Amino acid sequence: MQKTIGYAAHNSNSPLVAFSFERRDPLPTDVRIEILFCGVCHSDIHQVRNEWSNSAFPMVPGHEIIGKVTKVGSEVNKFKPGDTVGVGCMVDSCRECPDCRDNLEQFCNNAVFTYNSPDKHSGGSNYGGYSGQIVVNQDFVLHVSDKLDPAAAAPLLCAGITTYSPLKHWKIGKGDKVGIVGLGGLGHMGIKFARAFGAHVVLFTTSPDKTEDAKRLGADEVVISRNPGQMQQHLGSFDFILNTVAAPHNLDIYTELLKHDGTLCLVGLPDQPHPSPSVGNLIMKRRSIAGSLIGGIKETQEMLDFCAEHNIVSDIEIIPIQQINEAYERVLKSDVKYRFVIDSASLKQTKD
Amino acid sequence: MQKTIGYAAHNSNSPLVAFSFERRDPLPTDVRIEILFCGVCHSDIHQVRNEWSNSAFPMVPGHEIIGKVTKVGSEVNKFKPGDTVGVGCMVDSCRECPDCRDNLEQFCNNAVFTYNSPDKHSGGSNYGGYSGQIVVNQDFVLHVSDKLDPAAAAPLLCAGITTYSPLKHWKIGKGDKVGIVGLGGLGHMGIKFARAFGAHVVLFTTSPDKTEDAKRLGADEVVISRNPGQMQQHLGSFDFILNTVAAPHNLDIYTELLKHDGTLCLVGLPDQPHPSPSVGNLIMKRRSIAGSLIGGIKETQEMLDFCAEHNIVSDIEIIPIQQINEAYERVLKSDVKYRFVIDSASLKQTKD
Repeated sequence: MQKTIGYAAHNSNSPLVAFSFERRDPLPTDVRIEILFCGVCHSDIHQVRNEWSNSAFPMVPGHEIIGKVTKVGSEVNKFKPGDTVGVGCMVDSCRECPDCRDNLEQFCNNAVFTYNSPDKHSGGSNYGGYSGQIVVNQDFVLHVSDKLDPAAAAPLLCAGITTYSPLKHWKIGKGDKVGIVGLGGLGHMGIKFARAFGAHVVLFTTSPDKTEDAKRLGADEVVISRNPGQMQQHLGSFDFILNTVAAPHNLDIYTELLKHDGTLCLVGLPDQPHPSPSVGNLIMKRRSIAGSLIGGIKETQEMLDFCAEHNIVSDIEIIPIQQINEAYERVLKSDVKYRFVIDSASLKQTKD
Repeated sequence: MQKTIGYAAHNSNSPLVAFSFERRDPLPTDVRIEILFCGVCHSDIHQVRNEWSNSAFPMVPGHEIIGKVTKVGSEVNKFKPGDTVGVGCMVDSCRECPDCRDNLEQFCNNAVFTYNSPDKHSGGSNYGGYSGQIVVNQDFVLHVSDKLDPAAAAPLLCAGITTYSPLKHWKIGKGDKVGIVGLGGLGHMGIKFARAFGAHVVLFTTSPDKTEDAKRLGADEVVISRNPGQMQQHLGSFDFILNTVAAPHNLDIYTELLKHDGTLCLVGLPDQPHPSPSVGNLIMKRRSIAGSLIGGIKETQEMLDFCAEHNIVSDIEIIPIQQINEAYERVLKSDVKYRFVIDSASLKQTKD
């Protein structure tokens, strides 16, 4: 066992504070990783504040992890000490169910998420990436090219795969017209990927002041979703719309913009239901409303390799762990372009 | 012009009565059809009663038409007098838009439906199949094999294609597990087609007394949708569920039965919204909720040819036109197995 320093929430309404705990020694198929950077995902806040009613405390959040391998178990054949690696939202799954066999471990009923998930090794809940090190089965560790800036690569492990996966699944490419709803941690990655795949990219936002930045990120057009006149100009013209907004909102203004056989894909989970979508809008052009959740391990590796090849990373703001509570408040105000990333070196200034 | 006898609604709250009107003489590309049989679709009732708020009166309903060609225009090359033919929900479209070019005329913004639709020839609204004859552009007339019983083939033109098209579009075949929700005019055709395509077919119904008939029609299993225990046994196991029920209901009990990448396809248009479906159910296995509307002309012909090859027709109850008002009441009580079909010969007993 190795003593590890992290930052933890001890209940749903106190700030995160320094927290000392132990990581297991690597099992034969485990990799020990010194964490260099960890992205701050909005879902960290949901879980720290127990907004999904499934939180176990103390909780060390963090599932956008970039680090260096420091030790490998005796049977590890995919990694060696010194490798730059990533760990995303999952650290294990059953390996046997239909979803696992189809490389969609994120849908496995026994998927083990990176934190706040039952840990068969310790018997408690596991701890995530707001910490100095982590020990993970090699099958859930990703290779990260040294071509990529490691801090800016961290958000690829959740925000990146969450947007890459649906765009790939729905085969977005040259000639497609793609909408991205919302310009935040997910939306800005959605623009980058859709652009890299060759699509014509339209950002939908309620904020006219995001126009310039959206175009800098790769959007061909920006449409103010509260402007019905602007929206009407795009009726029946989209192949695919990736909706990253979790707050409840009217989905019909997007479904009616789809061509026949177009899909509105939701990647945000609202805490209250969206208004019930129009069935007429779906029937009339054989449109679909779908959902998507991160991506499997194989596809996450493919995404990271694609990012290395195309030099795609997240736009980030690096913070020391000591600023995490202020960062949460800024995330809630959408006051970040576009992802906070914790510099894990700052943990060394923390006394346990 | 040819004088024609039909049955019409003169307003939204009176019974249908005999009605005399004129059909145009065939234009060069038109086919004149003596109507032999016409199916009674639930949407006839919606429109007769102006439940979709778009009804023009007098209205001669009917879009499940089987007849014999009696005359063809000078440029008609697809049909000759004596041919058995069908006319479904559409009689024209723009022929030029992306939807028409993709053989999906049902989605054309200028599609002309078979009745209660603006008629460029007369300048008024057009009249449907509850009548002795109809004149239709040859591109919207279907060949019907003489192998098929003409009365039982009539409902194929709407109930048939409405269920065939989504099962084909989502590539249902051997090895797939398919659900059909609701056993009525649409549902009974859904069972027949899904079975013919080689799928394992499960009927969902609220009525245990429909079990035996569903199995006779081809269902492998019948699940009582109000029985949570029975429903739970099928969690995450369906490739595709075709939902024929238009009344507002909880869709989540069906989405959670889908495998990853499964689709719940709606073909019923509720007059009030369904309860808002769970986004979590969609995100969790990348599931979709889609809609589908009849099918294009090319696919309707393919469906009729498939039916001739596989001896598939609707289960029907033949009525004379004089019983249409009683038949409507029985449709509203689901008291028909499974489609009323008007014997158009009965019109000859009608005095205009």
